[in-house]
Amino acid sequence: MRDVYVIGVGMTKFGNFPTWPGVKEMGEEACFNAMKDANVTPKDIEAGYCGVVGGIGRSQGPLAGNLAMKQVGVAGVPITRCENGCASSSTAFREAWIAVAAGLYDVALVLGVEKMAGLPTRMMLKAMSQGSDMEIEGAMGMTFPGVFGMVAMRHMHNYGTTREQLALVSVKNHHNATMNPHAHYPKEVTVEKVLGSPMIAYPLSLLDCCPVSDGAAAAVIASGDVARKYTDTPIKILTAVQKSGTFLDTLDISTFDITVRAAKEAYRAARLEPKDIDLAEVHDCFTIAEILHNEDLGFFKKGEGGKAVEEGETEINGKVTINASGGLLAKGHPVGATGVAQICELVWQLRGEAGARQVDGAEIGLAHCMGNFSHGDGGTCNITILKR
Amino acid sequence: MRDVYVIGVGMTKFGNFPTWPGVKEMGEEACFNAMKDANVTPKDIEAGYCGVVGGIGRSQGPLAGNLAMKQVGVAGVPITRCENGCASSSTAFREAWIAVAAGLYDVALVLGVEKMAGLPTRMMLKAMSQGSDMEIEGAMGMTFPGVFGMVAMRHMHNYGTTREQLALVSVKNHHNATMNPHAHYPKEVTVEKVLGSPMIAYPLSLLDCCPVSDGAAAAVIASGDVARKYTDTPIKILTAVQKSGTFLDTLDISTFDITVRAAKEAYRAARLEPKDIDLAEVHDCFTIAEILHNEDLGFFKKGEGGKAVEEGETEINGKVTINASGGLLAKGHPVGATGVAQICELVWQLRGEAGARQVDGAEIGLAHCMGNFSHGDGGTCNITILKR
Repeated sequence: MRDVYVIGVGMTKFGNFPTWPGVKEMGEEACFNAMKDANVTPKDIEAGYCGVVGGIGRSQGPLAGNLAMKQVGVAGVPITRCENGCASSSTAFREAWIAVAAGLYDVALVLGVEKMAGLPTRMMLKAMSQGSDMEIEGAMGMTFPGVFGMVAMRHMHNYGTTREQLALVSVKNHHNATMNPHAHYPKEVTVEKVLGSPMIAYPLSLLDCCPVSDGAAAAVIASGDVARKYTDTPIKILTAVQKSGTFLDTLDISTFDITVRAAKEAYRAARLEPKDIDLAEVHDCFTIAEILHNEDLGFFKKGEGGKAVEEGETEINGKVTINASGGLLAKGHPVGATGVAQICELVWQLRGEAGARQVDGAEIGLAHCMGNFSHGDGGTCNITILKR
Repeated sequence: MRDVYVIGVGMTKFGNFPTWPGVKEMGEEACFNAMKDANVTPKDIEAGYCGVVGGIGRSQGPLAGNLAMKQVGVAGVPITRCENGCASSSTAFREAWIAVAAGLYDVALVLGVEKMAGLPTRMMLKAMSQGSDMEIEGAMGMTFPGVFGMVAMRHMHNYGTTREQLALVSVKNHHNATMNPHAHYPKEVTVEKVLGSPMIAYPLSLLDCCPVSDGAAAAVIASGDVARKYTDTPIKILTAVQKSGTFLDTLDISTFDITVRAAKEAYRAARLEPKDIDLAEVHDCFTIAEILHNEDLGFFKKGEGGKAVEEGETEINGKVTINASGGLLAKGHPVGATGVAQICELVWQLRGEAGARQVDGAEIGLAHCMGNFSHGDGGTCNITILKR
């Protein structure tokens, strides 16, 4: 398999746009920005991959990629929708990487997009219930906040993680978001404000949970043979690993076996260790998730993720910068867009273009994205490692 | 890219099963049958790809592949949902082919599945509207029967295709289905019965339209390096080509430019001509579609597709056997399952295991699958060519 590089990225601002723009217009903006950044024209694009969950509010799943890409003149070529819940566009990114690495295409466009705003809660719950086993967990009302509330309780029980440590994740990520022009909630919050926000699923309150967002993100990738034709700053894809859950094998919900397995394979493939990672975008759908995944990714010993946040080790230029973008918690979480939005942040950081939130001397970045959750384990976990 | 082979296939019977089995159980049956046919165990499977549209009745899109594959012990490995409307599982098959050809995996499992029965018409129309531009064509009520009614009218106007010729496609495919134990409607129909069935969208009546079906189909593919370890009759994938629509470029709806472009590339890649194809499974969502696609695939001159049916050239052991399985019209059309179900039929035929509907001496088979339709052109067209 050939070397593959990210040669351009682009995003929309994340936010809530109940009426406009829609999937097509947001997709258009992200694709246009990425293609401009990559210095490619529509005729350079040999394939398109789109990550979108769809079926949520005005979010069209089928054809969303085709409709959005057509807006920027990309049509006729193979366009494939990949859907793996919140990991949809990290999956799409990986499939594009496989196809370019295989030699089938030299240049491919990857889009992640979602339009979630304005959906009544009842319909949102129904749509989201398909991210677990609809016939069992869906019917039982086993929502994601419910799952992660239990995860938090177990982590606190096992390791003495505190409610304040959870809140500090939200404080850090909201602070980072104030420096990110694409963020949905670029506002400082305090521990008191997090603790005082409405309770969602004990011990998680509103500001422990990522918001429902609209947005799009895109990336152009190219084979090593042609990457430098387009850019002087190609960012190398060291590996893109994907795992699915094993179901019922996870007896201890304070660790996600799926992340442990994916990380192990990713580090081996990239010939790296956790200590080599300068910054990571981690799937912080809830505050507890960031703490738990930081441990499972090997950045901290099991049980020490809460303490690490408290001691500032995950802040920008800490031991390992986690979610410099603001993460899902504050940058926002338009589900289908999140995977590629993580790639955008890594690329900007590795090119030294992240402005006020720049991680000094960033050379290696890791993106961790998860989708769905069923029978006690994650549905999908994608880990992508990029190098300057 | 390496040579890749289909080493096993399996299906459920297609039909309407309003309460049971669901996506998980149907997926399980198809996967089990394909894995048994391929002589593989769950631990041999290195990746799973699932084509499912979802959001239709009890059809779960997200996680459907994971849930179904877990039933046969396939878990932990990367499992990716691909969705391209009615071409979802032909897209999944192609992505699996790319990944195995790339050298990333040696053995992969591909599943197509859909559960459509029992959905109220209003909700079905809403679900299906996402297969076109939801904001424009969906809002206008531009349904697929409406589109293909117009296509039929244009074809009749341009080429003198007759209403009876359309009906004969349905007669032929229903006849073929009587010899297929997996078919949804294994019943003979006559031209009179087709013409007398309720009008849906002029000139198409009920028996000109494919049914709403439930079902699943699966295939196991393997690299040339390992295929013969599992089977003595590997079927070679000569090529798998995918195109998307160019939108608004099709001024004449009596031809589908997307099929013409995909076919041209497929024949070039496989170093074949249309006359080399012994049998084809063609996307006959409506009777007119088979006639039109047979022309666009190069089996007959433009405008002569109707006459070819009338003269028996598309019957089993005719000039080119079209839809020996009964096709979408009579085998049924559980949308996500159709692409892989076409592969199943080709594999059985090429191995000489198709029983009463066997095409004599079949050596090369072609599958043509389309998904979505927007702005005057198809959303996705997949063409796969297999060789004994």
